[in-house]
Amino acid sequence: MPAVKNKQILLASRPVGEPSPANFKSAESELREPGEGEILLKTLWLSLDPYMRGRMSAAKSYAKPVEPGEMMVGGTVSEVAASKHKDYKPGDVVLSYDGWQQYALSKGMGLRKLDPKQAPVQTALGVLGMPGMTAYTGLLAIGQPKAKETVVVAAAAGPVGSVVGQIAKIKGARAVGIAGGKDKCDYIVKELGFDAAIDHRAPDMAAKLKEACPNGIDVYFENVGGAVWDAVFSLLNDFARIPVCGIVAHYNDTTLPSGPDRTPMLMGAILRKRLTMRGFIVWDFAAQEKDFQRDVGQWLREGKIKYREDVVEGLEKAPEAFIGMLKGKNFGKLLVRVAS
Amino acid sequence: MPAVKNKQILLASRPVGEPSPANFKSAESELREPGEGEILLKTLWLSLDPYMRGRMSAAKSYAKPVEPGEMMVGGTVSEVAASKHKDYKPGDVVLSYDGWQQYALSKGMGLRKLDPKQAPVQTALGVLGMPGMTAYTGLLAIGQPKAKETVVVAAAAGPVGSVVGQIAKIKGARAVGIAGGKDKCDYIVKELGFDAAIDHRAPDMAAKLKEACPNGIDVYFENVGGAVWDAVFSLLNDFARIPVCGIVAHYNDTTLPSGPDRTPMLMGAILRKRLTMRGFIVWDFAAQEKDFQRDVGQWLREGKIKYREDVVEGLEKAPEAFIGMLKGKNFGKLLVRVAS
Repeated sequence: MPAVKNKQILLASRPVGEPSPANFKSAESELREPGEGEILLKTLWLSLDPYMRGRMSAAKSYAKPVEPGEMMVGGTVSEVAASKHKDYKPGDVVLSYDGWQQYALSKGMGLRKLDPKQAPVQTALGVLGMPGMTAYTGLLAIGQPKAKETVVVAAAAGPVGSVVGQIAKIKGARAVGIAGGKDKCDYIVKELGFDAAIDHRAPDMAAKLKEACPNGIDVYFENVGGAVWDAVFSLLNDFARIPVCGIVAHYNDTTLPSGPDRTPMLMGAILRKRLTMRGFIVWDFAAQEKDFQRDVGQWLREGKIKYREDVVEGLEKAPEAFIGMLKGKNFGKLLVRVAS
Repeated sequence: MPAVKNKQILLASRPVGEPSPANFKSAESELREPGEGEILLKTLWLSLDPYMRGRMSAAKSYAKPVEPGEMMVGGTVSEVAASKHKDYKPGDVVLSYDGWQQYALSKGMGLRKLDPKQAPVQTALGVLGMPGMTAYTGLLAIGQPKAKETVVVAAAAGPVGSVVGQIAKIKGARAVGIAGGKDKCDYIVKELGFDAAIDHRAPDMAAKLKEACPNGIDVYFENVGGAVWDAVFSLLNDFARIPVCGIVAHYNDTTLPSGPDRTPMLMGAILRKRLTMRGFIVWDFAAQEKDFQRDVGQWLREGKIKYREDVVEGLEKAPEAFIGMLKGKNFGKLLVRVAS
């Protein structure tokens, strides 16, 4: 097999505030053919996820940032296009972390083979992948919802929030979702079985949330921050648990909000209400991956968990789709179909 | 036995900001003699604790506030002065919650008999009582210090902080204490065995704390808030645990500090560093009282835990001593000797 042309999308410059298309650039290069023990992977699906906004920044975090000029990172589902590795043959489909590009060379490290008969392969990037496991581990290990308790989650039509709410229901809790717009709100109640949906664009969002949580909030799965957090804050019950998974409303912030400084108010509430707030990333719970695959796999087969995908076609659409996602424009797990 | 004259100290008015002597008033009344099944208790020791500042406020909290005109509440060690209760005889000493007064009538509910041979009876208000158990449960159940980790606590010469640091040492951790002034700093290092002490009045407190925590901070036992929290914040390690026990620096606040609003900064750190913050009051861990009595009792006998008392004489001194405590004027567990 001859060398292949490989298109990549690189970080052109670090965004200040909201990312723009100018922060990305395309690059094309030739990829040599795989050597002994190597595999050539063709990207089928690229996952776009909010955490990538963090990687575009220089700020210290749990993972090292992408440097300007480097390729954007990301989870992928790929097909083996050529193999000189004993464990892989052309046509095998794998979960990989190849980033925003059409092809990649691999030595097989960190790959997981996917069985298309078990589930559509791209679910390994969504409900059966990192977002689903984020929901599962954060909600169950930190949130620990009990029957009759109230669980609130924002971005509730998204790949994490939708699973949070559905697992809350499975555990017998009341699930209240916050989402942007009527379509998403209808979807989470009518399709996913949430007990109530609040449109975060509604001017009386806080009042609506209070109405939807007559017994207060016992678990708030935090993935947005901002105005939603403010609305949730006063409704938190004693002993409420708050898994902190993301604060997407703040990812584009360049300065802190103007005052007063409400940190003492938060500390006071943590104390008086005996709140538990705990930040996590999914890999902190890597040991629970088998439990996750078993449980969520079963709930999917039983129809207790549903999911939705938002697919854009072609790698070149990734920057625009990613920028839109940070504004809540996607409806379901955002995927780029890079090839088929 | 005839009726006794009983002096009480009442909440005269709710403080705005720092309490002043004018917020308290004395009252004298006659107490009838105990009826069948009742005990007359003579207060020997009254405990003064920071949580009482909360009770003086109308704000909703885990306990109902004291109303103006009502007696100030508080833990006491009392002697049975007269008894028509089969389980108590004159001379028995009990732990009770009789408040700021010289005498009380009791039906025996909630009393615990104390054995003066086991430990000085007033330790039931300090190292072997609520403050000691606050330290024990908050540090061990939430902070979970491991050997070699760094534990930081403020008000480190006080009845809670001193026990936090000493238990941290027993568990093999590095204990760094923050206290007000050279005497207290010397005491916690030389007497209690802390690894380092920082004077919170020093202008370069944050730099000194950083120096004393070369490997960052794994457990911060929060009982003050304010400038200490600010200094601790940037030194917190990934996966740090923060039992939130009090924010005494803010108890007299009438407004929030001026901006910017640093709440998103805190949320961001909780997320990136995967912090656990959890508020608690000691009675949330009531089930651990036996473990506490066993362990701390043994550590006391072995000399692994030391304690210090700051005694003021006479009930009428309670308001002034209490006001001073909120400013850090006490040195050791603050007790009022009401009678002997």
